[in-house]
Amino acid sequence: MTPQPAAGSATAHAAPPRKISADVAVIGGGIIGHGIAWEARQSGRSVVVIDDAPGTGASWAAAGMLAPVSELHYQEEQLLELMLHASALWPAFAGRLEPGPESRPSSQDPGATGTGYLTTSTLAVGADAADRRALADLRGAQQASGLTVEPLTVREARAREPLLSPGISCAFDIPTDHQVDPRRLLARIAESLAGSAVRERAAGLLWEDGRVSGVSLAGGGKVLAGETVVANGLAAAALAGLPEGLKLPLRPVYGDILRLRVPAYLQPLVTSTLRGMVHGVPVYIVPRQDGTVVIGATQREDALSAADFEGAGTGPAAPPGAAGSAVSAGGVYQLLRDAQALVPAVAELELLEVTARARPGTPDNAPLLGRVADGTGGDVAGLVIATGFFRHGVLLTPAAAAICRQLMDGNADPRWAPFRPDRFSGPPAASPSPVNTVTIDPNKETA
Amino acid sequence: MTPQPAAGSATAHAAPPRKISADVAVIGGGIIGHGIAWEARQSGRSVVVIDDAPGTGASWAAAGMLAPVSELHYQEEQLLELMLHASALWPAFAGRLEPGPESRPSSQDPGATGTGYLTTSTLAVGADAADRRALADLRGAQQASGLTVEPLTVREARAREPLLSPGISCAFDIPTDHQVDPRRLLARIAESLAGSAVRERAAGLLWEDGRVSGVSLAGGGKVLAGETVVANGLAAAALAGLPEGLKLPLRPVYGDILRLRVPAYLQPLVTSTLRGMVHGVPVYIVPRQDGTVVIGATQREDALSAADFEGAGTGPAAPPGAAGSAVSAGGVYQLLRDAQALVPAVAELELLEVTARARPGTPDNAPLLGRVADGTGGDVAGLVIATGFFRHGVLLTPAAAAICRQLMDGNADPRWAPFRPDRFSGPPAASPSPVNTVTIDPNKETA
Repeated sequence: MTPQPAAGSATAHAAPPRKISADVAVIGGGIIGHGIAWEARQSGRSVVVIDDAPGTGASWAAAGMLAPVSELHYQEEQLLELMLHASALWPAFAGRLEPGPESRPSSQDPGATGTGYLTTSTLAVGADAADRRALADLRGAQQASGLTVEPLTVREARAREPLLSPGISCAFDIPTDHQVDPRRLLARIAESLAGSAVRERAAGLLWEDGRVSGVSLAGGGKVLAGETVVANGLAAAALAGLPEGLKLPLRPVYGDILRLRVPAYLQPLVTSTLRGMVHGVPVYIVPRQDGTVVIGATQREDALSAADFEGAGTGPAAPPGAAGSAVSAGGVYQLLRDAQALVPAVAELELLEVTARARPGTPDNAPLLGRVADGTGGDVAGLVIATGFFRHGVLLTPAAAAICRQLMDGNADPRWAPFRPDRFSGPPAASPSPVNTVTIDPNKETA
Repeated sequence: MTPQPAAGSATAHAAPPRKISADVAVIGGGIIGHGIAWEARQSGRSVVVIDDAPGTGASWAAAGMLAPVSELHYQEEQLLELMLHASALWPAFAGRLEPGPESRPSSQDPGATGTGYLTTSTLAVGADAADRRALADLRGAQQASGLTVEPLTVREARAREPLLSPGISCAFDIPTDHQVDPRRLLARIAESLAGSAVRERAAGLLWEDGRVSGVSLAGGGKVLAGETVVANGLAAAALAGLPEGLKLPLRPVYGDILRLRVPAYLQPLVTSTLRGMVHGVPVYIVPRQDGTVVIGATQREDALSAADFEGAGTGPAAPPGAAGSAVSAGGVYQLLRDAQALVPAVAELELLEVTARARPGTPDNAPLLGRVADGTGGDVAGLVIATGFFRHGVLLTPAAAAICRQLMDGNADPRWAPFRPDRFSGPPAASPSPVNTVTIDPNKETA
């Protein structure tokens, strides 16, 4: 499922450093980067996506819930507006990515191609009385925001999902929270962008005449571009040549997912996405069209850090692209325990995969999305930041793509100004002098 | 860690079928097959090991406990004698496999080479009062067989293993139950047998003049050998050309293992191998020299079968060599739950790997090891069977290797006659006529 490098894009180390030109250079081959590149290509621009291991970061562990209603958190009205905007864009976004009729999946195998976009509803389910109160309180906030969340009796919920435990305390129907398969989505976008992949690590931003002019590659090459989009998640903050004074306060927030196969005699395990609250702890079960389910939790706070394993012997190293993504035995245990509390038959599934990844969190849980002030009242030309999507990256992809396209077209929608990536960088006056527009050449600095 | 094919041993499909000659042909590249081949090579014989995916079967999921005392079961006295014999052979067997001093591991990295053979003792630990009674009863049987099992107080056990839960009900020290790392053992043997691997599937036995003369390969080639050893586990019964009337009543018995990495601040998690009984269910924790631990159960009765997943959608297929080895989500949950009951810090480990494999079980839990009657009062010449090692394959490897070497030398030790592979085949008179020695050419039958 991992996108393949474009023909000829692999770097032969003996060859001279490459120099590539494109209208748009996107740093980061996750779902956000691919979505932005795809939208830019749709607008007639030439694009490249720079990533030495595309699709292996946070996107690889995403469950693909498109869930603005379930994901509502108190005091995050602006983020809700962005999530609802993204949710409204999803049907057309997914539709444009579907293959033509000649390559449509057959009726025997409805899930074999495309993005796995499904508009089946979501059920929020609680295990005990406290979970019921918490979900009812959340429903109050959701309704106050104009969102539709309908209570079901346990009997009604089990009529729809017969394998739900009879012991659940409550259920709510959320008809507008949907899902997509992130791995298939990414593969589908990468396929339609064939030829645009640069399988190298980005080293830093190139500048020329006070504007960003492209990307220097770790192998010594360059990508020259009219617009450069920084969409490499947690790695964004470490990029050389970011505008002076720009702070990208990203922190890793870990997520585990389990992927399991449902035996034939239990198909389908569930038809709705289940979002459970089990003794105060979240767990979800997402059914895929291919007969598998994904089980995860929205986030894990007790992440194992890479440092915990320093000097921990000669055990095998993490796979490429999985740096800092140790799977916690306790986390897997808890996921299986809580998923079984909602759907006891989970015990009978085949465990196919256990994956952990870090997602880019921000102090206000909202993305860092847009242009960056240049200290003279304008924005740095040629540069768009798109990171910090936390656990909303898949949902927000069409919105991020559309917003970036508008920015490249010269239009900035004031609704999205609260997500400007320089909002944590303090006022430009905080800089000792307005030096933000000096030319920085990261190649010189690191040479 | 998987043994590599010998140079030139890969079959080019366009090339004419190969014809190889050796003193000994071993069918099956698991630990038993490798051990027998290695011992035969030590005796001066030329050997080949025939397997299209060596080391990926039951050996891949073995924990490597060398535990004749812990593995004592009531009414299995003959098996106990074989296990104690094997246990006595282990120090010399492991010693002969250690690399020379020039390639010994450094003190920084004591576990980097060799077989991982360790003579640290085993602790049997119970969780509740019923587990204590069960382990005390077992100790009575072990003592009656002359075996040493010393009770420890919980305080004494926790002084030795501080991360043991204070809630355990009992502990017993078993100083003579040790361990080896099966993957390293297999890699070490394969390394010292370099050049002997035939990476093809065996199709059947070849016969000539009433004796087995070698092995026909699935690719059309042949291995001609003075002695052929059938050591391919569960697949043995499906081999073409077995002596007429020979029944090899093998059944799959599944085992799961988890492999986990211990963070630096918890090193070592435990120093002894722990064999737990948790509310009547066995679980073990085996510490490796490389800072990992293996967690498993001796066997799983509620195996998922491949048939359960037929028609279960387009989920990914099992990896090569893993046929019929679905990992049960409920099994993983139970292992993590029970291991945490003994050592709560298991929750803090990194889960590296989850593996399931089927082992070859027999009706009496004892191996099928030796020569086969030819119906005329003698044995079929040129043929040795060595399968059905159930959950004792690693422990029994040196014994199986020594017994096969003795058989090839013309010596049959009467102590091991109870393990003859034809013991389930009924008396030769049960055959309609003494036709067991007719020449069977499987190539003709399948052409």
